Amino acid sequence: MSELERARRCADRMYDNDRASRDLGIRVTVTAPGSVTAEMTVVKAMLNGFDVCHGGYIFTLADTAFAFACNAYDDLTVAAGASIEFLRPAVEGDQLTAVASEQSRSRRNGIYDVQVRNQHGKPVALFRGRAHATGEPLSERKSDT
Amino acid sequence: MSELERARRCADRMYDNDRASRDLGIRVTVTAPGSVTAEMTVVKAMLNGFDVCHGGYIFTLADTAFAFACNAYDDLTVAAGASIEFLRPAVEGDQLTAVASEQSRSRRNGIYDVQVRNQHGKPVALFRGRAHATGEPLSERKSDT
Amino acid sequence: MSELERARRCADRMYDNDRASRDLGIRVTVTAPGSVTAEMTVVKAMLNGFDVCHGGYIFTLADTAFAFACNAYDDLTVAAGASIEFLRPAVEGDQLTAVASEQSRSRRNGIYDVQVRNQHGKPVALFRGRAHATGEPLSERKSDT
Amino acid sequence: MSELERARRCADRMYDNDRASRDLGIRVTVTAPGSVTAEMTVVKAMLNGFDVCHGGYIFTLADTAFAFACNAYDDLTVAAGASIEFLRPAVEGDQLTAVASEQSRSRRNGIYDVQVRNQHGKPVALFRGRAHATGEPLSERKSDT
Repeated sequence: MSELERARRCADRMYDNDRASRDLGIRVTVTAPGSVTAEMTVVKAMLNGFDVCHGGYIFTLADTAFAFACNAYDDLTVAAGASIEFLRPAVEGDQLTAVASEQSRSRRNGIYDVQVRNQHGKPVALFRGRAHATGEPLSERKSDT
Repeated sequence: MSELERARRCADRMYDNDRASRDLGIRVTVTAPGSVTAEMTVVKAMLNGFDVCHGGYIFTLADTAFAFACNAYDDLTVAAGASIEFLRPAVEGDQLTAVASEQSRSRRNGIYDVQVRNQHGKPVALFRGRAHATGEPLSERKSDT
Repeated sequence: MSELERARRCADRMYDNDRASRDLGIRVTVTAPGSVTAEMTVVKAMLNGFDVCHGGYIFTLADTAFAFACNAYDDLTVAAGASIEFLRPAVEGDQLTAVASEQSRSRRNGIYDVQVRNQHGKPVALFRGRAHATGEPLSERKSDT
Repeated sequence: MSELERARRCADRMYDNDRASRDLGIRVTVTAPGSVTAEMTVVKAMLNGFDVCHGGYIFTLADTAFAFACNAYDDLTVAAGASIEFLRPAVEGDQLTAVASEQSRSRRNGIYDVQVRNQHGKPVALFRGRAHATGEPLSERKSDT
């Protein structure tokens, strides 16, 4: 099994069980180990009191891209934290694309950057996530659902 | 009108129009100008591929508390960015409480800290938000919906 | 030995060997395990191209307070990362005080907040540090100098 | 005057007056508007209590690269904040290189990423700075020294 195949199997396994990302209509593509593209359309239920997309949903899209990027190595990895810069509002109907790339990875810790853009290619947010690998194989994990 | 009354009117105005926070069942209480408590119950639709609450929803709860805290002054204020530390997972049925407090506020910029705890009082996340005030009165704003 | 005594012994041991903090004239006081005050006077050599204190020196003061705060438990602890918000410039002659307090601490990870104020009590910076404990006793460590 | 010439004139003007960066032996090279390389050798006076380079000096190097990168447009720009991830310690004698690149820039705000590496090309730190442009021309600024 190639590294890319392994990354995609990890992603498939996670995605099947990821109600949050699926319910939001997020589509995930593994382009390389540590590299992921996630897409989401902004719907009315995501709008905040100012009629723009709640920052929480932009973060969620980026966080999903990050989670799939850092779980490419069959080693269950969780988010220790993240930061986000909001560059431009997103509105209803916008199609957002988050591209995650690995910046650094050691045995236990990784740093992943995610750029979120809209359908015009304009930057919406910059996200940086900090991952912590648990050492538990993802492939042996039992789901409780 | 007292400062607290003004803060609560701003919050009511925002909340009426905030589909995202309302659809997630987030309840918002303004305790003082710049201080807000927001509560949310973790439901199945918020779980990620590891059967714990997607970090995006924990962020969203904190971000809502932050947004209502920084919009207490009838001056439309947006999030420029934020960082979050994830301290402990949240699971289905957990009742999360986010408490936002103002750390710093100048004419245009503010820093707000949010602590998220579960129903046992255990810390789930620490959030720090950076707010930018636009100078546009919130009370004169027309909603487009 | 009380917890406070232990914290102070750890700090004394670190400080003796901390050329960086000593050369900058930083004075460190352990007020409780996980709580530290560090003070520094802004001198001409710390000014940047705009005649205000280089942000790097404000960060350094906060980082020193953080380092001594998280090393209170005889468990060698290093900084994994940090963020800082610059609220107000500091100028030559300003006397800065950094107060570090523990926000969260598990076996391996800790979060520490540091507030930096000037001699008028005005906020200069907010800092949040992420600590990683190595598990190596500080008291048994050999210095190589 | 080309954009690169303007960026270099802004840098020269800043550097002449930047005692902090000069005293630390930091060398600054503007490679393009918004892109800067800064180099520094770790000396004994930069070591902390654990005999490695104090994180404050690694931050300072990155912050200098950031400051020169964001001041390329003859518009006096200050740091609003920054975050840093420490990836690997630096020791006495290490030659560190910080490469700053512009990630986003609007009229008033910019985001700059800085990678710090050692003489072996190994990553030492990742830094992300948030810049705020004041609108004051840098070229008309009087220095008070």
